[in-house]
Amino acid sequence: MTDAPLVDCLQYANWSDKIFQQMRSGRLDAVHVTIAYHETFREMVLNIEDWNRRFERHGELIFPGRTGDDIRRARREGRTAIFFGFQTPSPIEDDIGLVEICHALGVRFMQLTYNNQSLLATGCYEEFDAGVTRFGRQVIAEMNRVGMVVDMSHSAERSTLDAIEISSRPIAITHANPHWWHPALRNKSDTVLGALAETGGMLGFSLYPHHLKNGSDCTLSAFCTMVARAAERYGSDCLGIGSDLCQDQPDSVVAWMRNGRWSKQTDYGEGSAAAPGFPDQPDWFRDNRDFRTLADGLRAAGFSEAEVAGILGGNWQTFYDRSFGPKPA
Amino acid sequence: MTDAPLVDCLQYANWSDKIFQQMRSGRLDAVHVTIAYHETFREMVLNIEDWNRRFERHGELIFPGRTGDDIRRARREGRTAIFFGFQTPSPIEDDIGLVEICHALGVRFMQLTYNNQSLLATGCYEEFDAGVTRFGRQVIAEMNRVGMVVDMSHSAERSTLDAIEISSRPIAITHANPHWWHPALRNKSDTVLGALAETGGMLGFSLYPHHLKNGSDCTLSAFCTMVARAAERYGSDCLGIGSDLCQDQPDSVVAWMRNGRWSKQTDYGEGSAAAPGFPDQPDWFRDNRDFRTLADGLRAAGFSEAEVAGILGGNWQTFYDRSFGPKPA
Repeated sequence: MTDAPLVDCLQYANWSDKIFQQMRSGRLDAVHVTIAYHETFREMVLNIEDWNRRFERHGELIFPGRTGDDIRRARREGRTAIFFGFQTPSPIEDDIGLVEICHALGVRFMQLTYNNQSLLATGCYEEFDAGVTRFGRQVIAEMNRVGMVVDMSHSAERSTLDAIEISSRPIAITHANPHWWHPALRNKSDTVLGALAETGGMLGFSLYPHHLKNGSDCTLSAFCTMVARAAERYGSDCLGIGSDLCQDQPDSVVAWMRNGRWSKQTDYGEGSAAAPGFPDQPDWFRDNRDFRTLADGLRAAGFSEAEVAGILGGNWQTFYDRSFGPKPA
Repeated sequence: MTDAPLVDCLQYANWSDKIFQQMRSGRLDAVHVTIAYHETFREMVLNIEDWNRRFERHGELIFPGRTGDDIRRARREGRTAIFFGFQTPSPIEDDIGLVEICHALGVRFMQLTYNNQSLLATGCYEEFDAGVTRFGRQVIAEMNRVGMVVDMSHSAERSTLDAIEISSRPIAITHANPHWWHPALRNKSDTVLGALAETGGMLGFSLYPHHLKNGSDCTLSAFCTMVARAAERYGSDCLGIGSDLCQDQPDSVVAWMRNGRWSKQTDYGEGSAAAPGFPDQPDWFRDNRDFRTLADGLRAAGFSEAEVAGILGGNWQTFYDRSFGPKPA
């Protein structure tokens, strides 16, 4: 265990010194952070500028992650490598050249959709899923070329299967759970997860209550038993964590995620008018310090030490190593 | 000579396969290319996208240069390293965070002004030179921090002296000549050149006819004799070439350089209503293949082989090595 890296492949917190300190207490080596939802390119750049100020101010705790080797560097230096990702393709606007520009700025993951139809594909809340679009095919090829990972966490079924097939490199579902465990619209079908695993892709299990059976009351044991069932179906090498931790965010942020600028009405997404805000985290996963609690749970669910090490970071390490550079000839 | 790199520290050509082939024929190891005049940030990004397409299409001839070591890599691989620069600070708009963003995108030089007053300093065509502004001081410190070179080629006297004093790292005048040789508004005073040399800065001699004594009719011998006089005054280690070659550009481009979007009238800059376009290059410096002609001229003007090697690229190599990374602690 002590030799394996710890990687969380999705967080969107209200970043602060406290949270970076907790990353270090939890010994997180790498965190994939969302830097944009519905932002234009220029607005997204302002978010990177904010991150640059954080890297300046908290350089003893965090640094910008660019390659798989930065996870190893993080462990050597006792800091956490921060990898950037988008949850919608809004920042590339309608301009395929922005894929390489964003990669140069450090972006390593991009969802082809959030919950709605995008210019690239269909989100899981749309009624009809038309699959990957003409522009979407071009963008996937460009992401493959430069080394930006296609993330289909919020995308609809056919679009996700299309992306797996079209992409010449393995894709990721950074933060979702199996639909057979908890049938949320955001969770993924057995067909999708099977195709993902077969093509070398990765699934990051989500700890966001709306993706958990029994929501905030989900137990560690129930969660880890689900992971064990997933390992039986897909093998454990394609499994990791993408907690979707939205620590310390005001509820206005979940409203932005769900509504962006696209609606004058309020869309509650996975919530409801009665419960519009962020749900409470389960008490065994509240912040980065609880990451290793998962290790105990996975062991109790029957995983070997090597499997636990893989799921908590080793598998993402392998995936990061082969995903973030130009496509090998 | 064969062991020394060849570096041209300013060109703005109508880029084409032909020109990249000529760079290789001339064995240029590095060229600093202008990628923006009056562009906004987003417009400048489109220009980088164009360069990314050129790097894809002409990867056997050129590649993006980021560090001094890329000059060595260029020589090893028989390609030309292309370094990006801005001739005005327009692309950083009013946002200091864009300095680091632009550096991440490969920008290594930025003029604090073109011919007019900018948000940072005063250009050489203004009547009154108020020196470096409040924003300008902040931007210089940020450029120093990230490793972007302050270029004062088009700036006015006091602003240039201010920048030399304020900058904690050596600055550059990438493309201009001494005012004592040819008293053009764009050429630099002895005071400025002395201060530049004293602080470890670099002067790139321009081959643009408006900066040459007798313009297009300037002889190789006259030019190289001027370089020899400059070496006597300032030493030869601070001297290089920044040819300001604007090969194959239509005259609409010089109109854009001079007028941007700031005037409804036509500003002719160094030209005139009678000669509004690009002047003819002297017949001994028409394109990248003529770069080595300069070597013969410099030898004839009395320079040693080592001095010739320094002026044609070795001195820029030293400057690039120490200028493009974070400021050493």
